Parts: sequence; structure tokens; C-alpha cells
Amino acid sequence: MEVELKALLDDLDVLEKSLSDPAPIHKLRSHVENLATLSKCNPHRRSKVKELSSEVVDSNPYSRLMALQRMGIVDNYERIREFSVAIVGIGGVGSVAAEMLTRCGIGRLLLYDYDTVELANMNRLFFRPDQVGMTKTDAAVQTLAEINPDVVLESFTMNITTVQGFETFTSSLTNKSFCPSKEGGSGVDLVLSCVDNYEARMAVNQACNELRQTWMESGVSEDAVSGHIQLLVPGETACFACAPPLVVASGIDERTLKREGVCAASLPTTMGVVAGLLVQNSLKFLLNFGEVSPYLGYNSLKDFFPTMKMRPNPQCSNVACLQRQKEYMLAKPERDAAAKAKMEADASTAIDEGPLHDDNEWNISVVDDENEKDTTKAASSSDTLPEGLTRELPVADEYEKAIAIASGSGETEEEDDLEDLKKQLEALNAA
Amino acid sequence: MEVELKALLDDLDVLEKSLSDPAPIHKLRSHVENLATLSKCNPHRRSKVKELSSEVVDSNPYSRLMALQRMGIVDNYERIREFSVAIVGIGGVGSVAAEMLTRCGIGRLLLYDYDTVELANMNRLFFRPDQVGMTKTDAAVQTLAEINPDVVLESFTMNITTVQGFETFTSSLTNKSFCPSKEGGSGVDLVLSCVDNYEARMAVNQACNELRQTWMESGVSEDAVSGHIQLLVPGETACFACAPPLVVASGIDERTLKREGVCAASLPTTMGVVAGLLVQNSLKFLLNFGEVSPYLGYNSLKDFFPTMKMRPNPQCSNVACLQRQKEYMLAKPERDAAAKAKMEADASTAIDEGPLHDDNEWNISVVDDENEKDTTKAASSSDTLPEGLTRELPVADEYEKAIAIASGSGETEEEDDLEDLKKQLEALNAA
Repeated sequence: MEVELKALLDDLDVLEKSLSDPAPIHKLRSHVENLATLSKCNPHRRSKVKELSSEVVDSNPYSRLMALQRMGIVDNYERIREFSVAIVGIGGVGSVAAEMLTRCGIGRLLLYDYDTVELANMNRLFFRPDQVGMTKTDAAVQTLAEINPDVVLESFTMNITTVQGFETFTSSLTNKSFCPSKEGGSGVDLVLSCVDNYEARMAVNQACNELRQTWMESGVSEDAVSGHIQLLVPGETACFACAPPLVVASGIDERTLKREGVCAASLPTTMGVVAGLLVQNSLKFLLNFGEVSPYLGYNSLKDFFPTMKMRPNPQCSNVACLQRQKEYMLAKPERDAAAKAKMEADASTAIDEGPLHDDNEWNISVVDDENEKDTTKAASSSDTLPEGLTRELPVADEYEKAIAIASGSGETEEEDDLEDLKKQLEALNAA
Repeated sequence: MEVELKALLDDLDVLEKSLSDPAPIHKLRSHVENLATLSKCNPHRRSKVKELSSEVVDSNPYSRLMALQRMGIVDNYERIREFSVAIVGIGGVGSVAAEMLTRCGIGRLLLYDYDTVELANMNRLFFRPDQVGMTKTDAAVQTLAEINPDVVLESFTMNITTVQGFETFTSSLTNKSFCPSKEGGSGVDLVLSCVDNYEARMAVNQACNELRQTWMESGVSEDAVSGHIQLLVPGETACFACAPPLVVASGIDERTLKREGVCAASLPTTMGVVAGLLVQNSLKFLLNFGEVSPYLGYNSLKDFFPTMKMRPNPQCSNVACLQRQKEYMLAKPERDAAAKAKMEADASTAIDEGPLHDDNEWNISVVDDENEKDTTKAASSSDTLPEGLTRELPVADEYEKAIAIASGSGETEEEDDLEDLKKQLEALNAA
């Protein structure tokens, strides 16, 4: 397109020289300049925003995320902009995880992959046919920057399992320029492993064990119908080498390993679910809400989601893991003290609201009638629905009343019966 | 862009008339025509394919899907091209469901929505900021056609809850031109409800009950952290009116209902997971593999996935549902007969391979030693790993051997001990 526009402008220059009146050429040239502008910039591309706003307007890309704060799910959603997440492997799971974090407004994403986009990847979400031939990292940066220009994107087109690649990987993880105040040896808050082979997982495991870096592992089975995610906290949980898979490739690149010419199957559904579970648990971990699953499986044939917890292996073959295990053991008194302090703080809060007298061993308290009335009032007012809402079914009391009326045995009739009985009794007594 | 190109061509026409030699103008015009072509077509767009190939090459967009067949998960993956799926609501769940089905190579997709794309939708997957202002159906068709030109896309920009919209909805569902041989009243194989309000769900429910159309319902909670999918088979399972929600909007459009100015929260993770579970169950239903979940919940705070089964309500307020229930009851003898026939067919297959003699009441069979040897051989050969794979841990036998060797009590030594004992015994006897 640029070549064609340049040729057009050149031909206009030539024509202008042969004409006495240059006015029509000027007009033509302005059209061409407009076309050049239109072909370059996307008029709808959104501009960066300085602060996350919770304003409820259609033009606010963060309104539905900030609502998490207002609804009491997350204490401080805005903290998301301070976090750095590294994603290793930008394939069927990693690319979707990157898109989810980008749309959530994560501060910084570090992307690692050495592969290129192929048409054979089109059965999974994210990459488009027009990106075929690009490196996965370049294609991802192109798409993600368009979706959310607020996210700082850093891409590394390389193989982390080579000696040089591993060095670049660890040094990029330790770079703290994005958040210099971050404690510990790493400059990122979480590493997500979305690779498809054992060797790369072991490389991530090694780097994270060395850097005391919490990470999450993910995987999808070769038959495409099951997957899993796993949280790995060096020293605290099992590392990837603590319980390695029973069968691994040796001597050849397992990615090229094709048994009887069979390529692994994959589905956008399984990979989308695994990416969703992975990023949901990442958000819970980063923003401190809900419970982070230590391990979560997904068996799609039966919609079965097994969970488990894996302790570190004291005989682990990874030296860095053993060091982290030792540190974790040594820090036990510290953790216990912190837990005790927290428990006492919680208890003292409870005491403030608790027993009224020191000798009240049964925790009996006198409830003010006024307060009770207020409670009843509050309870009944919570039964009252906001404007515009009605109950689809009658509430219990009204339902019983309705039945009573329908069966013709209302309270008034019951009273009549009682009157009749009284009269009969009086008549009997009088007899 | 088109406007600018048209203006350029018009101005060239005017200029041509004022010139004696039209040659430079012809040259300019050819540049403009090239520009017009370039602005329209995408050079990397992939061409349509006639038949799904299972060839394992990078350029085959279906290789990883056809692998499902080779791996024994699906009997006939190619059937996917015969299916039509209608998706009502192209929002956070529906758009991702549409993309997943498109990437899986579904035959035909019918898309229904009346809304437009806003920046406030950017916290969920699928839509891009450059699509802001487009209708969701147009934007979806644009993206999906680019991803997979093999899918037949039909979009309906309308509200199915209006009288006219509902009529268009049902008549589009009954159109059988895509697959004239399809049995029953509907021309689609599955309807996916991905709407965000009660009224629209009731409209889908009504249409599906009338057309005896199996559908799946999906939903995400207002606080963005839980969701569900549900299978609805008219007459067989509960319909949406059989167990309606307890609280519904009345008199006003519930979509505009904002309690105290609070907009609903949403997350790309929860919606991605729900879309994944929805389409995974759709694939299981269409391609007949695994077990389709009648109801599957997703509680993301605890990673809890409740399941349940809902029978139809004999007091359902929906007349069409009651009719379907009656039909289902009446068809019971037919179903029983079919089930019995299937059971007998399965049993007769078992008999063919089963007892060798008529009077063999214990089903005792004589196993040929040769066969047994073969079985053992087969079992041991399945223990043998394909080329390039090695075991990370020794197999049990080797492990025991290794221990035995390490502890210095190998078999040879044991034999030596036996020899020693023999000699001692002989010595004793000789004494």
C-alpha cells in the first residue's frame, strides 16, 4: 500500500511540471495524503488512560472491572497496574492468558516464545490467519497493544531451554525497573508456565527455584480433552522436579516427537478453560481474594475437576528446591508468631464486640428491645425489593394465604366453625 | 477510505477532460485502482478448504482437530461441517463461544444481538477497540469470517424479545436450506443462550419449547465470580420456566436496571471459562463423545463446580413445555423398546465372543496357551516405550533389582548362600 501511494505521488509530481495550472494537482495530492493517513492510523484505537476510573459509562474500558471493588469482591482493583506477570509459551493457553491479563489491565507482561504462527494453530483462540509467518511474540504484541495500550509489553523471541536463552530469561525476571520497590530477588510478581514440553517446564522450575519466585504451571493432555493448573511456591509446595512425570523424552526434542506420525490433538475449548482457570487463580493470588487452588484438574469428558495439594519432596533432585525447603523450615517460628499475632488481633477485635462483663463466662449478653426491633425492621426491609424488581413467586406467607383462600378454609371460616362448636356444646350442656 | 478513493477518481476524470494527452491520467488511475484493491482484501487471508484433511502439516488448519479422531476421542470429526448452531447474545460469553465453534470448523453459525460494541466491553475477550460503534453481530461476522472462511455465518441484528424479533427468530431457526434432510421442526442442531437477562431467556425457552429444540443456557453472576451452563431438552429436562429465578424485573427493561448506580462487574476469565464449558458440552452433544452435563456451575472463588439434574415441573406455567412433557411420557414405551433392543444387541455381541458351549452355565472358557503367551508378549511390548522416550524413574522390577544390588543381596549372592547351606547340611549329614 505504501509503495503504491509513493508511486502515485511521484506521478503527480511529474504531471504537475507539465501543467500550467497546478491547482488540480494540489487537490489530488491532498486526497492522496488523506489516504496515506487513513491507511496508517486506526481512527478507533483507544488512547491510554492515566488512572483507572470506576465511572459507569460506555466509553470506560475499566468500569466493569472497577465494579469488582464496589461489589466487595476485590479490596483494591487499581493495584493490578503495579503487577508484572511473565508468560512462558505463547501458544493455545499462553496467548489466551496474555489476552485475559491485558484486558484486565495488568501493569506489565513479559512474553517468551521462539515459535512462529502457523495455520495449524488456527483451531485455538487468539492468533489470526493474517499473522501466519510472524513470530508468536510479535503477533501477540501486535494484538495486545491494540486491545489495551496501557499494558507495558516486553517480548522475548527465544528458547529458554538453551544456555543463552536461560540466562536472558533469568536476567529479564530479575529486572526491577518497572517496580523498583519490589522485595525479593525477582522483578515479576508471578510466572505462568504455558509450555508444551518437559524440558521447558524444568527450565522455568529451575529459574523460579533459584529466584524464590512463585509460579503457576499449566498443561493440556495430548488428546485435548483434559488439562490442569498448579501453584508452585518454592520451598512450600512441591516443585516440578519433586514429582516429575514418569515418561520423558531423551536425546531428542520432545516437541518434534511424533509417534507413528500422529500430531497431538487440541481444542480451543479445553485450552480456553485452562487459560481462564489459570488467570482467574492468578488474579486471586495477585489481588488477594477467594482461595488460590494449589492444583486443579479439568477432565472435560466427565466435567470433573480434581484438586489436590502436593508437599515438597525432601529427596528432590533439584538443589535449589532443597535450599528453599530448608529456608521454609527455618522460617517456621516466624510464620507461627505471625499467625499467632493475627489470631490475637482477630480475637481482640472479637472481645471488643464480645462479652459485657469480665465474669460473664457463658458470653450472655442483654439485647436491647429497641435494637431487636431495629433488626426486625432491617430484616423486613431487606425483604423489600429495589424499585423495578418483583418476585416471580409469592413469598411464603402470601403463598399459604393464597392456598387457604383457594381451598375455602380461610381464618374467618375457622372462627365460624369454633362458634358453631361452642353453640353445640352450650346446647348439649343445656340439654 | 472508500469516500476518499471515489473523490480521487472523480477529480482525475475532471482533469482528464482538460488535458490533450490522457496517458498520465490512465497511469494515475491504475495506481488508484491498485490502492482500492489493497484496501479491501487481506493478502494473508486463508482460502476456503473443500474437505477437512488430517494431514500433519503446518498449513492445515484442521490437523489438530482431525487428530481427535485418530486418538479415539471422536468417531467422525468431519460431521462438524453438517451442524448449525444458533447463538443468542454475542456478549462476553456468546462471542467467545462463536469464536470457539468457528475455529472448530462448525458448518453454520446463526448470531443474534441488537447491541453495539462499546469500550466498556473491552474487559472481556473477542471485540477490539477498533470495532467500537459497530453492531456486535457485524463486528463478530467481520472477525469470524477472517478466522475461518469455511463457516457459513448468518447474523440477525435484532431483539428477540419484541413481537417481530421473536417471529424472525423462530422463522430463522426453522429454515432448513442448509441441511434439508434434517428431521424435526428446526433447521439448527443446537441453540446456545448467552444472554444477560430473564426476558431474553424466556423468549429462547418459548421458541425452543415450541420447536422441540434442544438448547443450552449459560449465565454469569453480577459479581463476575461465578457462572453456570445448563442443558434443556424440551419435555425431558426442566425448561427455563419450570424453575424460574425468584426475583425478576417488572415493568422496566432489566438490562437498564442499575441498583444505586452500580454496573455489573465482569471478568474475561469467568466468561472465558463459561464459554469454554458451554462449547465443550456442545461439541460432546453434537459429535457424540464423553458425557454432556445437565447442569454445571462454576464458583471461581473456591474453584467449585456443582452439578445437578432438573426434572420438568408438571405444574410449569409454559403450555408448550407441558405438551412436550406429555409427548415425552407417551413415548416412554418406544424409548424402553429401543433401550431393550440396544441392550439385547450388546448382549448378543457379548454372546458371540462368550461361552463356547450351550450348557456352559458358568461361562467357563478354555484359554489357548499360545494366546496367553501373545497377551503377555503384547503387555510387555506396551511397556516398551517408543523411540526417543525414556523412563524418568526405573520401572518397578528394575527398581527392586537396583535396591537389591545396592544392598548387596543380588540373586547370585542368594544362590551362593544356598550353596553354602547345602554344603553345611552335607557336612552335618556326613558328621
